[in-house]
Amino acid sequence: MRVNAYAAPAAGRPLVPTTIERREVGPNDVLIAIQYAGVCHSDIHTVNGDWGPQPFPVVPGHEIIGTVAEVGADVTRHKVGDRVGVGCMVNSCGECANCRNGDEQHCLDGTVFTYASPDRDGTPTQGGYSTHVVVDAGFVLSVPEGLDPAAAAPLLCAGITTYAPLRRWGAGPGKKVAVVGLGGLGHMAVKLAHAMGAEVTVLSQSLKKQEDGLRLGADHYHATSDPDTFTTLAGWFDLIVNTVSADIDTNAHLGLLTVDGAMVNVGAAPGPMSVNGFLLGSRRVLTGSMIGGIAQTQEMLDFCAEHHIGADIEVISADQVNEAYERVLASDVRYRFVIDTATLA
Amino acid sequence: MRVNAYAAPAAGRPLVPTTIERREVGPNDVLIAIQYAGVCHSDIHTVNGDWGPQPFPVVPGHEIIGTVAEVGADVTRHKVGDRVGVGCMVNSCGECANCRNGDEQHCLDGTVFTYASPDRDGTPTQGGYSTHVVVDAGFVLSVPEGLDPAAAAPLLCAGITTYAPLRRWGAGPGKKVAVVGLGGLGHMAVKLAHAMGAEVTVLSQSLKKQEDGLRLGADHYHATSDPDTFTTLAGWFDLIVNTVSADIDTNAHLGLLTVDGAMVNVGAAPGPMSVNGFLLGSRRVLTGSMIGGIAQTQEMLDFCAEHHIGADIEVISADQVNEAYERVLASDVRYRFVIDTATLA
Repeated sequence: MRVNAYAAPAAGRPLVPTTIERREVGPNDVLIAIQYAGVCHSDIHTVNGDWGPQPFPVVPGHEIIGTVAEVGADVTRHKVGDRVGVGCMVNSCGECANCRNGDEQHCLDGTVFTYASPDRDGTPTQGGYSTHVVVDAGFVLSVPEGLDPAAAAPLLCAGITTYAPLRRWGAGPGKKVAVVGLGGLGHMAVKLAHAMGAEVTVLSQSLKKQEDGLRLGADHYHATSDPDTFTTLAGWFDLIVNTVSADIDTNAHLGLLTVDGAMVNVGAAPGPMSVNGFLLGSRRVLTGSMIGGIAQTQEMLDFCAEHHIGADIEVISADQVNEAYERVLASDVRYRFVIDTATLA
Repeated sequence: MRVNAYAAPAAGRPLVPTTIERREVGPNDVLIAIQYAGVCHSDIHTVNGDWGPQPFPVVPGHEIIGTVAEVGADVTRHKVGDRVGVGCMVNSCGECANCRNGDEQHCLDGTVFTYASPDRDGTPTQGGYSTHVVVDAGFVLSVPEGLDPAAAAPLLCAGITTYAPLRRWGAGPGKKVAVVGLGGLGHMAVKLAHAMGAEVTVLSQSLKKQEDGLRLGADHYHATSDPDTFTTLAGWFDLIVNTVSADIDTNAHLGLLTVDGAMVNVGAAPGPMSVNGFLLGSRRVLTGSMIGGIAQTQEMLDFCAEHHIGADIEVISADQVNEAYERVLASDVRYRFVIDTATLA
């Protein structure tokens, strides 16, 4: 099946309209007619070659919302017409210790990611900037009624990326949670932590987005460019979710944690961190997190439906995607671009 | 009360016999006739000035075993003749969040450590290389019957330092625990993790102490000087307790952890660690730990009595302490020197 898509032809080159082949619907597959595809910073890193050589052309997009157009003979979990989502991965071995624990994103046999990843047949996967996609039914999420489909798209990556560490480290009533950076990931972290009942503080370089932060659910907002922030809030937080994809001063942020407090990096900053071991002596934790498993992603979607949470988005047509990339790099988006894939038809 | 002691007169100078003043026994105090004092690497760091200027003369020693010689009017917890222990701290505020949580070692008002630390009256505390010490009853541990008193002394620091992270990170049946370094701390970590039911691996620079490691309770023993160790054991451990007080390759060791695995530094290495953030993406944890609270220290002593665990020690007379320091620095001790303080009388 030949379908329309937007692809990067080579590293650092603008995306262009193209057509790609989708595989036949196998017995365990679901054919999805895509409606919306979110624009994630990872898409940009990948097509710019920041993460190494890629199998170009690459169709990015791993925040996918659509409806089921066809199901394979053995599929029982989804039926034609259902609203569904696909996130950052489309397959895994299903048999290793991590898959059995629901951590398909850490499959020991190699997770098949949604784009630029070797599929089971060896061809590179192609993502959601496209009209259709064929995905193994086990990696297709149900999108509950009541979630706006466009605003739900970013939940599949930005949502689960922040939901997982908030759950792992116990965000909830009586817990003080800091969110470092108020971008695509950060604005989801604020909404989710607030909905979980935590006391939420945004730590941003400046106070420029303070009004937004408070509207999204933050209780407090501090500028990290102000050195007083690091003395006033020393030892204050139970959990810091760092969503910044550039290097930050890890030690300064570790100093903001309580005994047993945890700092979780989800922004995939490129450089090595320099960590002062004495700051960890009070059982402070430095850790990271990468998306979440399928079961937890479904749990997150259900949680968002229950709490009426979607991303704050700007819907664009496919031909605006290169401009959108520039605006993401300039931090000029509040807070996620979502491609209306009807504009690809 | 004037008592005999061994003190370092200045940074880097050999210890010499001296006398020091112990305070009068107040209503909440316990006077302890010291029998044994362990020699901890921290003692050497302190008297060598590795940790900054100290209030010389310093009497080191925070692994203290003795018997109660006198109690204050309000003391009910201990009585004359009881066998007791004192570890790394002798007071804290008792009122801050950390003290209320049983983390007196992280007292927000400033823990009073057993030596070279400002006491409540402003004078520096003096440690266990001495015939007697006066300590607030709340910081005096009960030493259960059945623990050999000399072998129990190192439990007060080396024991609790390794017991706390093993408990915090769930060492027990079905868990794979690595102990990095087989010195004073490491040999306790092996004994304790084994008694908790974990599968224990020693990671040491060479295989020189392999026979000892297996005798102490390790199931496996690998040399970190062999690069194969880091490929064979990749993703293997649930918990790594790093007892080495020098800098090690943090990233290489993080690679040995499972998803959700934790690496805990207890050896207080001096330099900053360089950490590759991608290694933390599978929720691996880098953390530290510093001794443990009073309640947990008592729990550890009870656990050791139940499991017949003491340190492997070499008992020395007080006048051998300078030689002992040299042998500790040369890693020539299996595994802890303990001063028989009767030799000070």
